[in-house]
Amino acid sequence: MIDATHVMLAHGNGGRHMRELIEEIFARHLANPALDVRLDAAPFEIAPGMLPFITTDAFTVQPLEFPGGDIGALAVNGTVNDLAVSGALPKYLTLNVIIEEGLEVRCLDRIVKSLAAAARTAGVCVIAGDTKVVPRGQGGGLYIATTGVGFREPGRRLGIDQIRAGDVLLVSGPVGDHGIAVMLAREEFELQGSIESDCAPVTPLTAPLAAVDGLRFMRDPTRGGLATVAHEIAAATRLGVRLAEARIPVRDAVRSFCSILGYDPYYLASEGRVVAVAAPDAAGEILSRWRATPGGEQAAAIGAVGDGPGGVILATEIGGERFLEELEDDPLPRIC
Amino acid sequence: MIDATHVMLAHGNGGRHMRELIEEIFARHLANPALDVRLDAAPFEIAPGMLPFITTDAFTVQPLEFPGGDIGALAVNGTVNDLAVSGALPKYLTLNVIIEEGLEVRCLDRIVKSLAAAARTAGVCVIAGDTKVVPRGQGGGLYIATTGVGFREPGRRLGIDQIRAGDVLLVSGPVGDHGIAVMLAREEFELQGSIESDCAPVTPLTAPLAAVDGLRFMRDPTRGGLATVAHEIAAATRLGVRLAEARIPVRDAVRSFCSILGYDPYYLASEGRVVAVAAPDAAGEILSRWRATPGGEQAAAIGAVGDGPGGVILATEIGGERFLEELEDDPLPRIC
Repeated sequence: MIDATHVMLAHGNGGRHMRELIEEIFARHLANPALDVRLDAAPFEIAPGMLPFITTDAFTVQPLEFPGGDIGALAVNGTVNDLAVSGALPKYLTLNVIIEEGLEVRCLDRIVKSLAAAARTAGVCVIAGDTKVVPRGQGGGLYIATTGVGFREPGRRLGIDQIRAGDVLLVSGPVGDHGIAVMLAREEFELQGSIESDCAPVTPLTAPLAAVDGLRFMRDPTRGGLATVAHEIAAATRLGVRLAEARIPVRDAVRSFCSILGYDPYYLASEGRVVAVAAPDAAGEILSRWRATPGGEQAAAIGAVGDGPGGVILATEIGGERFLEELEDDPLPRIC
Repeated sequence: MIDATHVMLAHGNGGRHMRELIEEIFARHLANPALDVRLDAAPFEIAPGMLPFITTDAFTVQPLEFPGGDIGALAVNGTVNDLAVSGALPKYLTLNVIIEEGLEVRCLDRIVKSLAAAARTAGVCVIAGDTKVVPRGQGGGLYIATTGVGFREPGRRLGIDQIRAGDVLLVSGPVGDHGIAVMLAREEFELQGSIESDCAPVTPLTAPLAAVDGLRFMRDPTRGGLATVAHEIAAATRLGVRLAEARIPVRDAVRSFCSILGYDPYYLASEGRVVAVAAPDAAGEILSRWRATPGGEQAAAIGAVGDGPGGVILATEIGGERFLEELEDDPLPRIC
């Protein structure tokens, strides 16, 4: 057994302590037939006839544990979701952890256990990993980077370049829960709330859309939120995006905290939502599939792609209009 | 152009500053036909009939730049080498950077440029990436995590489980250069030296061995050095490993610094060397192929696998024996 209560530099040196840490925390929780921690590189299988996709993401959220999730679950779902919105079925993960000297071993154990549970839920196997330990004061507790490999049917037309003027924007559920949940967990605002992160795999929301003609593009509104996805669409298509405030689902509690804290919910991260762009005649089909899926009950059509340039405009509930500018300063460091 | 001289938190928020950082540093240096920074996940091609391998590694070296390399080149070569010693030809990389607020933009630019050059030298393309910025005091300047995908001919028998009693250990060149080069670059010892890191892709050393019958296993002696590779072999095979000190190539300057600093060169990291285990009748062929390869001129047979348990024993130059214990404390944090 690991005899230390806190991670030491020696847990990252390649020797006995590191071997014990890997065996007793990582290999134990993450055990699966494709994982052999003695290998330098892991062989993996390609689903025959399928197109492989790869994605990677680093996670630096603070605090490491928050209502509705932790950095372990986030590191699985964030990467799984980048594959899912690309139309791929996630299959394999690789895992990097950068641990700050002094992290509680029990905390690390909880997070790796949570990561393993999230991987099982999302249907992915961790097949390779690496651990590093950095000296106290150089690490922020724990950083995780994951890389995911998944497979997509060949011939699908799905991508930001498929978007046309007149297409509609849909969102699978309320936005901003993750951002507010993490901010409240920091306890620096002396506010208490019952907002939980929406951190979850979105594959149950994306997989049922594979057969929907007219689905053009999907993205998960993480860093920078819904407004940033809208800007990415506007920049890539050179078409304006118009959002209708009254139709964008935002929980009352999120809206309240936003008004207290001075945040705009449209810039807040979600970690279990999907924004989709679709031809107008496909929108109903997507919404009905989402609404029949747990987590998609509040799915809504929230806007449209215009026929000329014009940035991102929000039609407000009181009948006005305002530009949603591209995000400038960082209001929320270490949110994901 | 990026108008900041130092990285700000806003360079990690998903908005305008982040887009500029990605376009003007990462996309510019890393441009290749397979890289589209607008994608959530990147499609990639599988070489027909080949077996895909994946590996991942995080890099936290301090200082970020040192004689013979920097964290960018290291992040490419470390991951490329884990594929190479597995017998795979590296093809794709994904890249995560965790930047500490306040890092000089020019330093980041130099490192990404160096990373791009290392990728070209190693014959790999960066096809996906992510950047995060963490607040000052939580990051150690820059951490990089890379994941590599490569391909191996099916049917090769190469792995630690292939090792037999009587096999010999070979090393492709002098050990410990990287460890000493990084320690000297820290300037905390007030020592000056001309040791350069051996940081390099080992594919030129591993690829020519594909056709050598009797090659059992390869590993690059990074964290924990040659002694740790010997321990991994001893642990996996339950056979003793015997190394002959007189045959292990170590540069005179490395040996001198080791005696001044109190390090054992056999535990120091190399980042461009290969340890191979082979049947006795294959050793000559491997050595002659290595010695004909730039960087392999000093390749040597350095020991053998015994026929029973016994840990790792070093036969010293003066005719004695000493155990090389499994590494305990970390003498060299942030070495890779």
